[in-house]
Amino acid sequence: MPIPSLLQLVLDLTGTFAFALNGGLTAVRAARLDIVGVLTTGMVTALGGGILRDIMIDSLPPATFSDWRYLAVAAGGALVAFFLARPLQRFTMTIDVVDAFGLSFFCVAGASKALEFGLGAGQAVILGALTAVGGGTLRDVLLRRVPTVLTSGLYAVPALIGAAITVTATLLGIYGIPAAITAAAVCFLIRLIGIRYSLNAPQAPVIDHE
Amino acid sequence: MPIPSLLQLVLDLTGTFAFALNGGLTAVRAARLDIVGVLTTGMVTALGGGILRDIMIDSLPPATFSDWRYLAVAAGGALVAFFLARPLQRFTMTIDVVDAFGLSFFCVAGASKALEFGLGAGQAVILGALTAVGGGTLRDVLLRRVPTVLTSGLYAVPALIGAAITVTATLLGIYGIPAAITAAAVCFLIRLIGIRYSLNAPQAPVIDHE
Amino acid sequence: MPIPSLLQLVLDLTGTFAFALNGGLTAVRAARLDIVGVLTTGMVTALGGGILRDIMIDSLPPATFSDWRYLAVAAGGALVAFFLARPLQRFTMTIDVVDAFGLSFFCVAGASKALEFGLGAGQAVILGALTAVGGGTLRDVLLRRVPTVLTSGLYAVPALIGAAITVTATLLGIYGIPAAITAAAVCFLIRLIGIRYSLNAPQAPVIDHE
Repeated sequence: MPIPSLLQLVLDLTGTFAFALNGGLTAVRAARLDIVGVLTTGMVTALGGGILRDIMIDSLPPATFSDWRYLAVAAGGALVAFFLARPLQRFTMTIDVVDAFGLSFFCVAGASKALEFGLGAGQAVILGALTAVGGGTLRDVLLRRVPTVLTSGLYAVPALIGAAITVTATLLGIYGIPAAITAAAVCFLIRLIGIRYSLNAPQAPVIDHE
Repeated sequence: MPIPSLLQLVLDLTGTFAFALNGGLTAVRAARLDIVGVLTTGMVTALGGGILRDIMIDSLPPATFSDWRYLAVAAGGALVAFFLARPLQRFTMTIDVVDAFGLSFFCVAGASKALEFGLGAGQAVILGALTAVGGGTLRDVLLRRVPTVLTSGLYAVPALIGAAITVTATLLGIYGIPAAITAAAVCFLIRLIGIRYSLNAPQAPVIDHE
Repeated sequence: MPIPSLLQLVLDLTGTFAFALNGGLTAVRAARLDIVGVLTTGMVTALGGGILRDIMIDSLPPATFSDWRYLAVAAGGALVAFFLARPLQRFTMTIDVVDAFGLSFFCVAGASKALEFGLGAGQAVILGALTAVGGGTLRDVLLRRVPTVLTSGLYAVPALIGAAITVTATLLGIYGIPAAITAAAVCFLIRLIGIRYSLNAPQAPVIDHE
């Protein structure tokens, strides 16, 4: 299946670049790290989700280490972040939008790869979301921030929806470039709406700390 | 061996429910997260230890992803925590007792599964304890708390003892429901005593910071 | 190949002891943990890097769990730290130097083992560095410190250089005890220079927070 494999690669590498850029920008802005710290944060953000997915589906060594392009694209994205941090800082929403971009590509790529490795539909949806939120969560843990996946209701949810569309399309036998773009676009739009309106899911009833 | 397998499943799922409840309650109380954050924290707490164990013993994909019941029970426990957080908050010891409950089941389940996968006795004891403390440690890292396993001497120790009883019973050929209950009960009691009296293991000699 | 295997074991165990000592000392000094916390921190610091490497190269269960000597040496190093924390505290650079020692042995051991498992040259360099910085990063995450690998430019760099020397020597067919010692010594010296002069890699242009 050359075309699905190529599609998988394009989804993976696009998401990798977006997350590397996001991780690098976060490292510059939030923690004032030097170039090695920026490169490390960018690469962890970019490669973390895919590595977690590959461990879970027993595809070891992870694609990152069997295919040089992942490492090269991740390093490239982080270096772009390092050198363009100043001009990019004027666009305040940039970091979150780039993150939403990575989230959208990775939920599709993660769900699709999990299905290829024989996991069930429900598991593939969860693994798609894990691929999407994994790298950003590692980034936040290393930089000592509470992970976005815990604080923002509309972070895991769009990733789950994008993964679910991917899985449904595959089960219906219509997964391909149009379906992948649709799934990623739906995830992206929901995430953007969440960022724009600071939407959250419902909270538990208020607890009194008397 | 149908009975040991069933026993393994019951131990795993009971521990999973307890940790999901504990993780969800912690997310509500300590961090005021929304329902997605509570669900995520509960599921990470519930599934983290077993996933770490399954990675270590090369049982991939982890049981969590090959058997839907784990995901369902973990999600259920977290949702119970979300909706019952208010009535449950009156019982101040609840969170710690639920955590001790999960700890007791997981040290037995972890050690038993490690032996099934051919690991040695000592390794099975360590892996039993890792299964028991792993989920709570991930929970604490995500919520930015110093992990209980580092600050409370009587957290890893009861898990190691419960795992050691399990391994000893297996080596003697008497592992079964009574031995599993005994091992879990011993772990539970030692942990409760530790909580009640805030016991810790000895500290290193005081260091002067002049 | 009995001699390379023995060399691998010696490198691994020496690095393990150094990191266990470092992790234990850090736990005593930075967080005043009790003996169980010190033991846990020391063992995580000592075994974390090798376990991450073994997961990535699909060598599961990790060497730690298939070979008792790793667990024993890690526990021994942590206990030495616990009991000698007071006399050792007078040597202020001790913790960092011991860490540099572990870093140097692990970058060589990690790169060498990755090559044995058939990974490419570039991947082996990255995995050598991951082995070297992994345990200390887990230690810092558990103790809620920003990981050294992010804040100190000359932490990942010497590990990458030591791993690159190891890989180059192996490709040239001259890897053995002298090459391993050379690679570790170069890594150690660069790291010590970095500590002594608090050197960092360049930072991104200053960002104004007006």
